[in-house]
Amino acid sequence: MPDTAIIPTIPTAPVTPAILESLRAIVGDKGLISDDQGKQPFVTDWRGSIVGNAAVVVRPANVEEVSKVVKLCHDNGIAIVPQAGNTGLMGGATPWPSHTGIVLSVGRMNKVLNVDPVGYSMTVESGCVLQTLQETAASHDRFFPLFLGAQGSCMIGGNLSTNAGGVQVLRYGNARNLVMGLEVVLPNGDIWNGLRALKKDNTGYDLKHLFMGAEGTLGIITKAVLKLWPAAKDVATAWLAIRDPQAAIEILSEAHGASEDNVGSCELMSRTCTDMVLRNIPGTQDPLKADTEWFLLLEWTSARPKTEGSEGMSEKMEQFLADQMEAGRVIDAVIAQSEAQARNMWVIRESVAPASRAEGPGLSYDISVSISKVPEFIERGLKAALDILPSIRPYPLGHIGDGNIHFSFMGPKGMDRETLKQYSPAITRAVNDLVTSLDGSISAEHGIGIDKLDELAHYRSRIELDTMRTIKRALDPKNIMNPGKVLRV
Amino acid sequence: MPDTAIIPTIPTAPVTPAILESLRAIVGDKGLISDDQGKQPFVTDWRGSIVGNAAVVVRPANVEEVSKVVKLCHDNGIAIVPQAGNTGLMGGATPWPSHTGIVLSVGRMNKVLNVDPVGYSMTVESGCVLQTLQETAASHDRFFPLFLGAQGSCMIGGNLSTNAGGVQVLRYGNARNLVMGLEVVLPNGDIWNGLRALKKDNTGYDLKHLFMGAEGTLGIITKAVLKLWPAAKDVATAWLAIRDPQAAIEILSEAHGASEDNVGSCELMSRTCTDMVLRNIPGTQDPLKADTEWFLLLEWTSARPKTEGSEGMSEKMEQFLADQMEAGRVIDAVIAQSEAQARNMWVIRESVAPASRAEGPGLSYDISVSISKVPEFIERGLKAALDILPSIRPYPLGHIGDGNIHFSFMGPKGMDRETLKQYSPAITRAVNDLVTSLDGSISAEHGIGIDKLDELAHYRSRIELDTMRTIKRALDPKNIMNPGKVLRV
Repeated sequence: MPDTAIIPTIPTAPVTPAILESLRAIVGDKGLISDDQGKQPFVTDWRGSIVGNAAVVVRPANVEEVSKVVKLCHDNGIAIVPQAGNTGLMGGATPWPSHTGIVLSVGRMNKVLNVDPVGYSMTVESGCVLQTLQETAASHDRFFPLFLGAQGSCMIGGNLSTNAGGVQVLRYGNARNLVMGLEVVLPNGDIWNGLRALKKDNTGYDLKHLFMGAEGTLGIITKAVLKLWPAAKDVATAWLAIRDPQAAIEILSEAHGASEDNVGSCELMSRTCTDMVLRNIPGTQDPLKADTEWFLLLEWTSARPKTEGSEGMSEKMEQFLADQMEAGRVIDAVIAQSEAQARNMWVIRESVAPASRAEGPGLSYDISVSISKVPEFIERGLKAALDILPSIRPYPLGHIGDGNIHFSFMGPKGMDRETLKQYSPAITRAVNDLVTSLDGSISAEHGIGIDKLDELAHYRSRIELDTMRTIKRALDPKNIMNPGKVLRV
Repeated sequence: MPDTAIIPTIPTAPVTPAILESLRAIVGDKGLISDDQGKQPFVTDWRGSIVGNAAVVVRPANVEEVSKVVKLCHDNGIAIVPQAGNTGLMGGATPWPSHTGIVLSVGRMNKVLNVDPVGYSMTVESGCVLQTLQETAASHDRFFPLFLGAQGSCMIGGNLSTNAGGVQVLRYGNARNLVMGLEVVLPNGDIWNGLRALKKDNTGYDLKHLFMGAEGTLGIITKAVLKLWPAAKDVATAWLAIRDPQAAIEILSEAHGASEDNVGSCELMSRTCTDMVLRNIPGTQDPLKADTEWFLLLEWTSARPKTEGSEGMSEKMEQFLADQMEAGRVIDAVIAQSEAQARNMWVIRESVAPASRAEGPGLSYDISVSISKVPEFIERGLKAALDILPSIRPYPLGHIGDGNIHFSFMGPKGMDRETLKQYSPAITRAVNDLVTSLDGSISAEHGIGIDKLDELAHYRSRIELDTMRTIKRALDPKNIMNPGKVLRV
């Protein structure tokens, strides 16, 4: 969290007893949580690192109630923190400690309203849990391609508000690319009905893209029309020992064509990642005993079932891997021969975060650069961090198809959290300076929230920040909608 | 064009001799066109239906010059019409007759600045002609998937400002989906540098999506980082006689999986379209003598070369078409056996517009609905138009994978343009009312410009229009940037 001395000025109009009664009249008793114990999960962030405040948690049952609640707050200058699953990593959905207004949770609005398999779309309320939507799509022989660690508890409204990423972005794009239409409650309580299931609509400014990625500072997403894709029918998952990160981007570059544009995932891991997982996570197995510093988890996914005698994804991948070994990029590789083997590969990838938590305090940066610059970033970034703290232990990994590296470090052996914290500002500055010099992003997929407020202000140009502020002030002149997140207004 | 009685109020500050000299000091003699003959192509729209005015056409050589010109206009309240290829169909790039300011043409800024085949991107200036960009990508074994009728003369800046569509949207999305970063000159002359080659960047509001589709009313796009894809190596193109539009969407729905998500195009044509082309365009041949009212041009494109003995796109498509005939959706079909045969199929599709011009006056609507509603729209839309003018001759066609129908009509035989024009308002209203009742869009890919200003104002909600106006006023408080387009402010 930024220094408390520079916490942004946010509206502090109180929720008076009269306003509390007006809220109760709108959402009823079961839509209000005002006791401290009940509020606790809504005012504390997922990591437990931000403990905020709220006068009351309001849980409307539908968009009309959201509209009325927002209008009431608007008229009375009461600040609103919109919240879906509250699983974000930057504090965007968690109130500031100085917050005196409400948390507006969309969690009761959790219905799938319509699934259109032929039109490859579904219409949902924003409080739907992501995994429920994946399962709903699957039950219609369709695929909803947003997959990320928190999928069992995060909600689609938050995913869209933060333009979430995950392990399928390479092929399907970020959350914003999975959306055809939105319904949004604006800061004055008006309902914008942009809930159109249209692949093409060139009628004026594209408002939906403004609300996605705004982290609830411009309005509250209440419904969405999501795009669907065909369900996977033939999957090849492989574990590759590779020469270095440069080899990784060359392999990926050639994989697009070789797979007929069916690369689903391409995840880079350093040996330090995999060693850490194998050390800490019971049941994981090294898919390949190879003497290399870098691994790649490569998955190709086709919507066409493999038929007797035809060439499936595995056969195509086998040929491709042979070519890549020939070219010296791949040192050794194994294609999963069973779902269990594929699952093991994915568990290793997904266990890097929990394994790192088991090993002690660390630092992590969610950055992106253009794909071609990934090797240069890794090389120079490692050097910069090691120059500051030579005994720090890097374990870089990332969605390299997106140019997105989770640039992560374990503290030196035996160093406690407080001591490591003293090195953090210098390393953060070095990493972010490097990212910026390479025209990259200091927050590739996690957003800004509270945590990166100062970094955004430091690294973005005056013109860019001014333009964002102009938009914020125009749409939310009273600054009641998630104030003090993303931008200091 | 809307009734001249309701032309929007736009700034009318004149370009004085002193300002003309200031402009000359910025862009030099070769950056200024002030004689009437020279200005003519810049003030007349592509169709010849709008003849506007401009004091001078200014053609800057680089973004710094654009910035200085805009700042000068901003300080003096002079209106600017940004222009790229001026090939739009709605008048968005063409000045109003009452325009007293400048046309700012980006045509001299036409350099490809960088191609990154491994990173699948290229950075270009906004005055690059679209076809040049397609060719540049191809020369690097890459594919830039924006294809539309005007590609030989339209420029990428205009394509992005109008979020252009075309025949590859089904697979790759609209123009906005092909962009990673933008550089834009804002209405006050500031340069926003958002020229990042990033697939992921969650640092605040997504400004680039605001400028795309804004038709130059919020700023002038000067550079873009475009995404590239692997070049096609194996293409199957087929001509299908089909049962009806419902069959078309079912065929497409199943084609996604069967082609391994490699459907490139899926274009629906009525028999009236193909008959009109065969009648008017020399050298075209009916690919299939079939007794049906509806045809589909289906193309599957793979980035993997077909190898000896392996199953290529044609073999997969053959199997698929057999299944679809079995299911009763396809009546007859032929897969092109040569490039010439495939080319003939595409020429038929692309010649519908020129063929219709050869036959006389007509009406056309560029609408979209959700894919599942295409058959209902066609059926009810035809009935509505024929109820008004029973002898009108419909020739619907469209990008059905996008739910986008070019809902077109030839006037009754022998009816002149003026008489047809008397029926136009009633038919337009009936079509647009139907589109709106089906939650569709009255301008799927052509935009609003001047032509649909009144229709947008009529069909969009007050809340939506207010939100757009709020954004316009915030970013362009003096209303100098393409005033009176898209919105009446």
